[in-house]
Amino acid sequence: MLLGSIEAGGTKFVCAVGNEDYRVQRKIQYPTTNPKDTVQQAIDFFKQFPDLKAISIASFGPIEIRKHAKYYGYITDTPKPGWAQFNFLGMLKDAFDLPIYWTTDVNGSAYGEYVMSTLFNEKIDALTYYTIGTGVGAGTVVDGKFIGTLGHPEMGHVRLKRHPDDLDFKGICPYHGDCLEGLVSGPTFEARTGKKGKDVPLTDHVWDIMAYYVGQAALQTTLAIRPQKIVFGGGVVSEAFLKKVRQQFDQLMNGYQNVGKLEDYITMPLAKNNGSATIGNFALAYRESNK
Amino acid sequence: MLLGSIEAGGTKFVCAVGNEDYRVQRKIQYPTTNPKDTVQQAIDFFKQFPDLKAISIASFGPIEIRKHAKYYGYITDTPKPGWAQFNFLGMLKDAFDLPIYWTTDVNGSAYGEYVMSTLFNEKIDALTYYTIGTGVGAGTVVDGKFIGTLGHPEMGHVRLKRHPDDLDFKGICPYHGDCLEGLVSGPTFEARTGKKGKDVPLTDHVWDIMAYYVGQAALQTTLAIRPQKIVFGGGVVSEAFLKKVRQQFDQLMNGYQNVGKLEDYITMPLAKNNGSATIGNFALAYRESNK
Repeated sequence: MLLGSIEAGGTKFVCAVGNEDYRVQRKIQYPTTNPKDTVQQAIDFFKQFPDLKAISIASFGPIEIRKHAKYYGYITDTPKPGWAQFNFLGMLKDAFDLPIYWTTDVNGSAYGEYVMSTLFNEKIDALTYYTIGTGVGAGTVVDGKFIGTLGHPEMGHVRLKRHPDDLDFKGICPYHGDCLEGLVSGPTFEARTGKKGKDVPLTDHVWDIMAYYVGQAALQTTLAIRPQKIVFGGGVVSEAFLKKVRQQFDQLMNGYQNVGKLEDYITMPLAKNNGSATIGNFALAYRESNK
Repeated sequence: MLLGSIEAGGTKFVCAVGNEDYRVQRKIQYPTTNPKDTVQQAIDFFKQFPDLKAISIASFGPIEIRKHAKYYGYITDTPKPGWAQFNFLGMLKDAFDLPIYWTTDVNGSAYGEYVMSTLFNEKIDALTYYTIGTGVGAGTVVDGKFIGTLGHPEMGHVRLKRHPDDLDFKGICPYHGDCLEGLVSGPTFEARTGKKGKDVPLTDHVWDIMAYYVGQAALQTTLAIRPQKIVFGGGVVSEAFLKKVRQQFDQLMNGYQNVGKLEDYITMPLAKNNGSATIGNFALAYRESNK
């Protein structure tokens, strides 16, 4: 069975077709420009596969995910020029008479990791996936369903206890200043140090400050949702950074709740090469085709 | 159908029998002493009702709620003398050959408010209930199920951005110092002002500081879970205080997500006289009896 995946990011689109074993058969990647041209390229790609049975879209946001809502399938209030109030799902539906699933980029990745964990015999029923890159967001799957009834989560915008050595940094979120995204997204490196993150060595104290905040995000998630696993993806994250995050998490938790082995609880994605969302999309498209 | 409710608090127990319309027929209340005597009083109370069909327990914690766990039904690591590692559910099961549901106090209250909202025609599918009293905790219901896979939530222990006028207050949580509970539980009034909360007028700036933190708790909950409603109960909460909380929430959110009318979103319990948990227990016992 042939399934389609659109991973719609603010800077690039990744479109793929694959089968119900989640194997990619063909894949294209191109920069995000204006909505009509960008989505048309996805449509042209999928039109090459007349046997396609379903598609799933994991999109940047904010988006409307409530099925009964008037603007279901739209990108809503994004500051990205041209994309606000764009009927993304509608344009796909006009082009294909197929089941099409619609969710956020991080939900797609969360679902991909949820599915992968089963393939790895991990028996994970509840999982949160964070991306820490240009922006910060998270999605949570519990028993195969996404958390978020009034809309999708926006865990990148929570407030945090400030690190004592970071009190003068105002944060860079245009909405909230020093929310999680304003304190740990990729561009904060330039704002704090004048250097890009990839040029700041892991021995720099700024990474400890980052780990303190990301450790708090993991703590909030644990105390509010109690998933079995928290996965961190995105350009800022590395195994060496997560080592620091686990230390901070452990100190913040101070033995209050047992989450098992920290190395298994706070982890990098199982999917390699940022592939979580594509795998999630295949699985969601497959599920949608069986409805 | 006769149903039993135990609301097991750290200072008092409330036991009640009622029917599937959630009406209380008999109720007793007594102080929490040692576990055996305290639970025996509940058993003696219920033994008067041979027609009882099911019981639900909403207990202080931490407790083990995972059904497959070795210590399912136990109170676990509480500092409360005598209660740690006590097999609460086991003692009830030895006394009654009935379906018995077991959950946390705040889950019980959350479920009660969830059920009540349906009676009030509110169509609430997802709801979080916070108690702010001697301690701080929260429970969340989504589509009739409680959030919490690795165990129950402990939302009272998240960290928060500190209020600029409160930076010198260390917080009173023995585990975490200035976590939510360490900053806004009832006993913080005496720690900050030397006076009991009921003697601190709402015009005192300490209430603004409290509202800033509770507003952040509501923000975290919104951004992580996106429930349709957040209910606040417990001795510290009043409608006048929630007015301040809504203002803080609104400023912190800064228009980022729409939660509808704030008066309907951040609210006092629908159940009067702290009755949420009893109603929740009746509904959970009823559900358990139909399994």
